[in-house]
Amino acid sequence: MNKIEHIGIAVKSIEKSNTLFAKLFGEPHYKIEDVLSEGVNTSFFMVGPNKIELLEATKEDSPIAKFIEKKGEGIHHIAFAVDDIEAEISRLKGEGFTVLNETPKKGADNKLVAFLHPKTTNGVLVELCQEALNEVLKE
Amino acid sequence: MNKIEHIGIAVKSIEKSNTLFAKLFGEPHYKIEDVLSEGVNTSFFMVGPNKIELLEATKEDSPIAKFIEKKGEGIHHIAFAVDDIEAEISRLKGEGFTVLNETPKKGADNKLVAFLHPKTTNGVLVELCQEALNEVLKE
Repeated sequence: MNKIEHIGIAVKSIEKSNTLFAKLFGEPHYKIEDVLSEGVNTSFFMVGPNKIELLEATKEDSPIAKFIEKKGEGIHHIAFAVDDIEAEISRLKGEGFTVLNETPKKGADNKLVAFLHPKTTNGVLVELCQEALNEVLKE
Repeated sequence: MNKIEHIGIAVKSIEKSNTLFAKLFGEPHYKIEDVLSEGVNTSFFMVGPNKIELLEATKEDSPIAKFIEKKGEGIHHIAFAVDDIEAEISRLKGEGFTVLNETPKKGADNKLVAFLHPKTTNGVLVELCQEALNEVLKE
């Protein structure tokens, strides 16, 4: 794994939280992206080599809505950048981790992503993400 | 803020979790540090420019013991690297954030640290950390 690609933070209002995190970092978000398939609206802040992704539910039954209902606003997941997501999935399965997406799916920010079940990772929802080639995403 | 310096993860057994995270990252922890003042034992993993800090309580009344009792194992805080922690504390107070340590304290890994109250940061416990000069820590 190359670095922390981003930290995902569940928020109730992306508009209010964009203002809050702009104050925290001293710089505004650089991107908004609506991920229809996941029922979330996202915004991204850059902090040196890392990103912070704010996640707001756009559907009542989205995972983010359920997370906030259960735990309140806060850190939702850690994403690690990998070069070859399929090789990492295979390696991690071999180590005993439960991979929730055996076939990587398209995530926000032009990434191929897969999640590990937090029950196998000390309660931490871990995302693997690989920069997607356009050809792969068109398939 | 320069980057995510580390993510702190609360764990019940640092011994078991060191094995687990070594499997996750494909590399073992590079350091163990007992922080007596905080009642925690810590271990550190390097992931490119970032670190993961595992935190195990060594006292029943330590913040990590209370966190695990309330929320279970999982992500405890995000730490951002800053060049001048006193300037950042002053800037963030001016922006309306509640700073829990107006005078930075000595943290693990030779750092001067200060925390922001999660009530003012969308439920996220934010740590600021600055590489400590030895002279500062001896004072």
